[in-house]
Amino acid sequence: MIQKLIENIRKTNAPIVVGLDPMLDYIPAHIQEKAFAAYGETLAGAAEAVWQFNKGIVDATCDLIPAVKPQIAMYEQFGVEGMAAYKKTVEYCQEKGLVVIGDIKRGDIGSTSAAYAAGHLGKVRVGKKSYASFDADFVTLNPYMGSDGILPFIKTAKEEKKGVFILVKTSNPSSGEFQDRLIDGRPLYEWVGEKVAQWGQEHMGEAYSYVGAVVGATYPEMGKTLRRLMPKAFILVPGYGAQGGKGADLVPFFNEDGLGAIVNSSRGIIAAYRQEKYQNFGPEGYQDAARAAVQEMAADIAGALGRD
Amino acid sequence: MIQKLIENIRKTNAPIVVGLDPMLDYIPAHIQEKAFAAYGETLAGAAEAVWQFNKGIVDATCDLIPAVKPQIAMYEQFGVEGMAAYKKTVEYCQEKGLVVIGDIKRGDIGSTSAAYAAGHLGKVRVGKKSYASFDADFVTLNPYMGSDGILPFIKTAKEEKKGVFILVKTSNPSSGEFQDRLIDGRPLYEWVGEKVAQWGQEHMGEAYSYVGAVVGATYPEMGKTLRRLMPKAFILVPGYGAQGGKGADLVPFFNEDGLGAIVNSSRGIIAAYRQEKYQNFGPEGYQDAARAAVQEMAADIAGALGRD
Repeated sequence: MIQKLIENIRKTNAPIVVGLDPMLDYIPAHIQEKAFAAYGETLAGAAEAVWQFNKGIVDATCDLIPAVKPQIAMYEQFGVEGMAAYKKTVEYCQEKGLVVIGDIKRGDIGSTSAAYAAGHLGKVRVGKKSYASFDADFVTLNPYMGSDGILPFIKTAKEEKKGVFILVKTSNPSSGEFQDRLIDGRPLYEWVGEKVAQWGQEHMGEAYSYVGAVVGATYPEMGKTLRRLMPKAFILVPGYGAQGGKGADLVPFFNEDGLGAIVNSSRGIIAAYRQEKYQNFGPEGYQDAARAAVQEMAADIAGALGRD
Repeated sequence: MIQKLIENIRKTNAPIVVGLDPMLDYIPAHIQEKAFAAYGETLAGAAEAVWQFNKGIVDATCDLIPAVKPQIAMYEQFGVEGMAAYKKTVEYCQEKGLVVIGDIKRGDIGSTSAAYAAGHLGKVRVGKKSYASFDADFVTLNPYMGSDGILPFIKTAKEEKKGVFILVKTSNPSSGEFQDRLIDGRPLYEWVGEKVAQWGQEHMGEAYSYVGAVVGATYPEMGKTLRRLMPKAFILVPGYGAQGGKGADLVPFFNEDGLGAIVNSSRGIIAAYRQEKYQNFGPEGYQDAARAAVQEMAADIAGALGRD
């Protein structure tokens, strides 16, 4: 899957991942109304609105992007029905040739991580049969519990030729409270980054490992250090756009080969129609607005990398 | 809910939480066979087996215990059907008067944590209606992302009079990799513990806060320090029994009032029938084995606390 991610990035010339984080507020009224007419103002209605909205975004952008990242919380909040919409979204994106990064941020003691890994990346055994429950291509993980919370995911990822992205330095304002604290003179996130590099040796692709890292676009200086510490890790970079990151901030996250990073934008793409600069598309034109926003983001990054 | 937890502990004289972590391996053959006969060897069949097994455990132990802790990974691995079994389990336990701690270990950037909080503790809005999706009484959280990943949960918990338990020092063997690293001469878990105490001031009950901590039974010395650092926090203590913790190890987690901690056992209770000492019950008697194991655990803890 890391090879497929790299191929997709080369094909589209856009190291971009679209965050499918569909808060109901972002979903145009005409989609919500249609879903509610069919299912009522219910969890099933919300799930239907989410799914139809996602389908629209994917149809409008899938030829321009290598990957999507559904944030599972936005589905999970709608209960069992929301989880069904998550699964449907994962499957649809894969049919369209996209790499799917399930943004689940799980992590637990070993036996529990193994269950999450089976459910989200691998297969779960039921009697003599086995099933892929949510079946993403990559998932994001939280490292707080250390190696035995991470290694079960890497084991499953190896069996399935899939991968993981581990939180190192997150994009949110309070990420520094623990992540920036100095341990033997170096911030915690560097120690986590070193571990990511070690874990990554367990599951290497050709030039890059199947074990990547999450480092926020909002911290480019730290990205530079982490890029050096984890030369073989792909970095998933959230925080572009709505959270404040700009194309020029992204350069340190990439390697000399022009690879090694993939930049996420969620609201900035999927709710582009609500921005002043795309408002002429209107809510009915949310798909075209998303497409225009992807093109602008790709140009911004290509420009910053000197590849426009 | 912290008041209800305290009342339930007083009523049962057992500061115990039963971990409802039903791996299929733990579920006696007769339950699996019946579920598969009805639904086939499918995810729905697995979910039915999980649910029937849980019901049996709860029916056999609910008068002896104050609370249960379903580990959501064990449900999530069975996909959408598994999540439905989780929800059913939460509801059933609440009907039986138990406090339900959803062991979800979530945590993300602010807007995403708000969605998780709505889905697991609060209500989600759909048009003019609102729904409680998974509706636990407490959830467990991961602190790696700092305050803005935690505060949205506390906000929702306040609105709903519910609570949270935040990972401080986990019970697994590799928990020290990051949690024990020294920052200004003190381990990371102490800094997290101090934050838990601060966050807890936002949402106080009478003697205890609605914001608790997770500290593994396997680390009693650290429990002692953390008990002092977080005097108003209830400590959820995993790692008793199968993970190696014993009654005597638990004393440091309690306050002088005999309260302040609740000890989890999962495998040791729900799969007690597989232990040599309870093997006379057999798989068909798994409920009686679980009840006997709860009674033994309660006596072990009461003895250690000098309350037998």
